[in-house]
Amino acid sequence: MKIAVLGTGTVGHTLAGELVELGHEVMMGSRESGNPKGTEWAAGAGPNASSGSFAQAAAMAEVVINATPGTVSLAALSEAGEANLDGKVLLDVSNPLDHSSGFPPALSVCNTDSIAETIQRTFPRARVVKSLNTMGAPVMVDPQRLGRGEHDVFMAGNDPEAKAVVEGILRGFGWRPERIRDLGGLDAARGLEMWLPLWLRIFMKQPQGKLFNLAIVSED
Amino acid sequence: MKIAVLGTGTVGHTLAGELVELGHEVMMGSRESGNPKGTEWAAGAGPNASSGSFAQAAAMAEVVINATPGTVSLAALSEAGEANLDGKVLLDVSNPLDHSSGFPPALSVCNTDSIAETIQRTFPRARVVKSLNTMGAPVMVDPQRLGRGEHDVFMAGNDPEAKAVVEGILRGFGWRPERIRDLGGLDAARGLEMWLPLWLRIFMKQPQGKLFNLAIVSED
Repeated sequence: MKIAVLGTGTVGHTLAGELVELGHEVMMGSRESGNPKGTEWAAGAGPNASSGSFAQAAAMAEVVINATPGTVSLAALSEAGEANLDGKVLLDVSNPLDHSSGFPPALSVCNTDSIAETIQRTFPRARVVKSLNTMGAPVMVDPQRLGRGEHDVFMAGNDPEAKAVVEGILRGFGWRPERIRDLGGLDAARGLEMWLPLWLRIFMKQPQGKLFNLAIVSED
Repeated sequence: MKIAVLGTGTVGHTLAGELVELGHEVMMGSRESGNPKGTEWAAGAGPNASSGSFAQAAAMAEVVINATPGTVSLAALSEAGEANLDGKVLLDVSNPLDHSSGFPPALSVCNTDSIAETIQRTFPRARVVKSLNTMGAPVMVDPQRLGRGEHDVFMAGNDPEAKAVVEGILRGFGWRPERIRDLGGLDAARGLEMWLPLWLRIFMKQPQGKLFNLAIVSED
């Protein structure tokens, strides 16, 4: 598939790198097409990797991944351009972390709304799916690193076909089908984003660098 | 120990019943001392069980458990009386679920505050510990029902001694020491309460009545 990864941070690099490894054609998008983080990544990641502006990346893609910080995602997607998002699967992995009052951050939107829903309202013809925001980047693309893959990833979105595309990407990363939990409509993204404050508190108590994720344990 | 369980709902009944089973002296508190839910429970639960008003229960107790809905907890604790909470361990298991806009509920407080912190500010001489609010009542008192006990319970609070008392109660319920995760100060209760929207979405997708909880899966 042709995939745009918007964002040049750790999450963007991790997702873009793994997607290229898996054989996809990936353009990393950033605010300016000559962004060194993007061009350096593309130069080292082989012939299926390229970089460009948010708009260039979204224009070439079948699937657009929003890996920008949630607090700037609307601005980034506006630069990507509504027309370039029209009808496309928009996988939103962002978190609306507001660092303005220090660490741990609060959320810039929550409870009765979410950044994913805000994106969907702003770009009604994009097919927004929330997923992968509930864990650190290395876990997203390599679930086998923890507990033999026995932990969970979630999806929320209003478009079943778009969720099927995202499920395919998740399976490509190694997620077991029974560990990909479809929580229903995009309003379930509120819960996925509101997990972050607990994730951050657990993170603060983890030995440094020790990856983790949550697993749902059910009664037999 | 002498324990007050404030609240006559499922959570209150479940906690009070198990605490009596474990040999504690338990008074179930409710708004009115003649509340039939309280008196019926006490009549059937043996000589260590009694019922009374919020104030009567708090007055007799060494440990007070707030098992009222979070949206009415401040009112219930005010009826319990500040003097009756003075210096006592106050285990807050409540969730601030606002059902006024239907199901699933939103939270009545979140993000930069929590019901637990609100309680602590209102009753500064109580020693508030947040715990157990992250799961259904049957799991609280019987962690072995799921995954051989390999899942997690959290604690947050500003008073180490109070947390040690709560840890003792949790171990009495069967929680393994390594699964009792101390997240630090009471502001971590924000994360514990903000887990509820995701818990509710998972609950909505679970087969009816099938209990679950979260487990933290860490890298080896």
